[in-house]
Amino acid sequence: MTFRVGLLGHGTVGSAFHELLEERAPSIEAATGMRPEISGVLTRSRGDFEEILAGSDLIVELIGGVEPAREYMLRALGAGKHVVTANKAVLARHGEEIYDAARAAGVQLRFEAAVGGVVPVIRVIHETLAAAHVERVHGIVNGTTNFILTEMERTGASYEEALADAQRLGYAEADPTEDVTGKDAAAKMAIIARLAFNTPIHVEQVPHEGIERLTSDDIAYAKELGLALKLVGTAERLDGGISVRVHPVFLYAGHPLASVAGSFNAVTIESPAITEITLSGPGAGGSQTASAVLGDVISAMIPPPTLPAPPEELELVTDVVSAFYLHLQVADRPGVLAQVAEVLGLQGVSVRSVVQRGLGEDARLEMVMHPVLESKFLAAVDLIGRLDFLRAAPRVIRVIEAPFAE
Amino acid sequence: MTFRVGLLGHGTVGSAFHELLEERAPSIEAATGMRPEISGVLTRSRGDFEEILAGSDLIVELIGGVEPAREYMLRALGAGKHVVTANKAVLARHGEEIYDAARAAGVQLRFEAAVGGVVPVIRVIHETLAAAHVERVHGIVNGTTNFILTEMERTGASYEEALADAQRLGYAEADPTEDVTGKDAAAKMAIIARLAFNTPIHVEQVPHEGIERLTSDDIAYAKELGLALKLVGTAERLDGGISVRVHPVFLYAGHPLASVAGSFNAVTIESPAITEITLSGPGAGGSQTASAVLGDVISAMIPPPTLPAPPEELELVTDVVSAFYLHLQVADRPGVLAQVAEVLGLQGVSVRSVVQRGLGEDARLEMVMHPVLESKFLAAVDLIGRLDFLRAAPRVIRVIEAPFAE
Repeated sequence: MTFRVGLLGHGTVGSAFHELLEERAPSIEAATGMRPEISGVLTRSRGDFEEILAGSDLIVELIGGVEPAREYMLRALGAGKHVVTANKAVLARHGEEIYDAARAAGVQLRFEAAVGGVVPVIRVIHETLAAAHVERVHGIVNGTTNFILTEMERTGASYEEALADAQRLGYAEADPTEDVTGKDAAAKMAIIARLAFNTPIHVEQVPHEGIERLTSDDIAYAKELGLALKLVGTAERLDGGISVRVHPVFLYAGHPLASVAGSFNAVTIESPAITEITLSGPGAGGSQTASAVLGDVISAMIPPPTLPAPPEELELVTDVVSAFYLHLQVADRPGVLAQVAEVLGLQGVSVRSVVQRGLGEDARLEMVMHPVLESKFLAAVDLIGRLDFLRAAPRVIRVIEAPFAE
Repeated sequence: MTFRVGLLGHGTVGSAFHELLEERAPSIEAATGMRPEISGVLTRSRGDFEEILAGSDLIVELIGGVEPAREYMLRALGAGKHVVTANKAVLARHGEEIYDAARAAGVQLRFEAAVGGVVPVIRVIHETLAAAHVERVHGIVNGTTNFILTEMERTGASYEEALADAQRLGYAEADPTEDVTGKDAAAKMAIIARLAFNTPIHVEQVPHEGIERLTSDDIAYAKELGLALKLVGTAERLDGGISVRVHPVFLYAGHPLASVAGSFNAVTIESPAITEITLSGPGAGGSQTASAVLGDVISAMIPPPTLPAPPEELELVTDVVSAFYLHLQVADRPGVLAQVAEVLGLQGVSVRSVVQRGLGEDARLEMVMHPVLESKFLAAVDLIGRLDFLRAAPRVIRVIEAPFAE
């Protein structure tokens, strides 16, 4: 069976989505029994909206901007088609109109990709926390500004220099106004607040302050004080109502958002029952956003699975590659390091760093290895353990690097 | 309409769930049109399973352990009742039997609370990442061991001292074996791996190493090397299969799990399309687990909402309480701080810390305020901005503390 997806917009995200859908179609078919296929693409220069609408079960709207995206979404919902969108501009301005139309039509409207990149903040607030009383959401919801602030902190660069870097590396648009003024973050916080507090919020009701006036001095002070400077959106319940706003803020080091670096997004959701949940991940990028859109498409195709799929059987590998830390208490005499290095070398273990510390009775070697097959490393450690200058059994701890170290 | 929930087990989590369900019943009814109510409670000393089963739409299993929990779950599924459980022991040993029974009965089986406390790792892998090809999951999935390691790092305590502290504070059981040996984490990783890779994994197939043999030396070395020592479960695809295991590991500072402290849990999910998502939150605690269970109950009662609820209208508050950082470039002469403090005091702004830096042309005051109503603080800043010794406009940045600072 085919599930027909009409695609509006074929820019960075649109074309990444198109490609990802075709790549994943076989496994989606295996999981859902339906094979998704692109039934038509609308761009400025090609495609006919009416024709695409008539031939689709679901419309993916990736045009961006308010019009004609809003009109297309309303038309699609009115025609009884599911809609998946990444369009924060429409939802932060005309959310109620769109939600009402979807409710009236009894179809699905999904918009995870409109907020927080791949960070599943919409689904978590909407489903996981359906039972919880959300008190407060703090979010780093704009990857461009977080990248710029991280660069300023890391390199001491000025705002202007860091912005130029971000533009050169594709993290900021040629016209960065929406991002650096906090307006983009304000739209996302309006959408989050609507879900968290069931109260309609228009982006124009969200006061926002950007990062354009921040100086490298501010960042330096933050560092001295053990604080991190971030552009944070806040949506919270207060006596008598709610508040939604976006500001540069100093975060104490213990705050879960303080360590969110680069173009990442992250959201901390506070609620009495759960204390807090923090979600973080890449904020932008065509393929990441496309993945969030595809997740929504699949959720619209079939109700989310409540059960694990029937099993396939992958083989369980027991001997794996890992990096290791090795701590040796040794007699303080010449040739010790050479012998250790020789044994490691014979097993094909490559040393990444070694520090010799202490003297006499306290002499020790602290080594970190490059990734190596566990069995080879442990065989080497077994041999090293028998060397006569060892004063205690070798201590071994695995080492994991940051998944995407710079 | 009533939705009848049969509750098996009334220990810490069971009684917290009972209380939370009663507290949230009115708002759940408002949202779903059904009012959940406890139709019966089974403990060792009271209640009759058959009677509870017959009178329930859904069974919440919070007995723990393998039997009789497994038998009750199978009986409930066989009788066509939805099941929500926090039972990792059963799922890591008899998962396929339980999943098959749920599939055959066409009912819902939900188990978010079995893994990761309130961290919605099951839902995110199962739903958000339905389209993604998960490559690797790293998880800190045992709060007790993370608490102990954090204490060792923070205070320099030995393993035994930190364990005793954890027991005194209720973070570790009187018999901590399951936790400190890594066995609890192994069971959770088996469940996560089953979902991420569609391959049945029995807890006995997961090699695990605990934290009992770690010394404060290891932690000290980790600190020196800029590494964090954590008990991490890993589930990953490898050439020809998968690997699932639990070990103490050193994490580089940039790794998203490196900063997870105290009894928190966190999971990093890596996939080519999304790069990575990290989820973190409290790992344990009766009320947190109860909240995860209740979230599952609601998801089983009604398909997860695909649309925002019809709006209520909460008032949008514009003047909020916030802490502030204030940076003043001042003339270097006596009485300056006194005047600034006087203006702040008149507006009811209380100073938390102040540092005077620099001399002559470079003299400046850096102040952090206690939380205060924004309008009062900005009025004070406006007045301060007019003082004749100011050499530049005051710089103001908001400050957010860690939500649950120790």
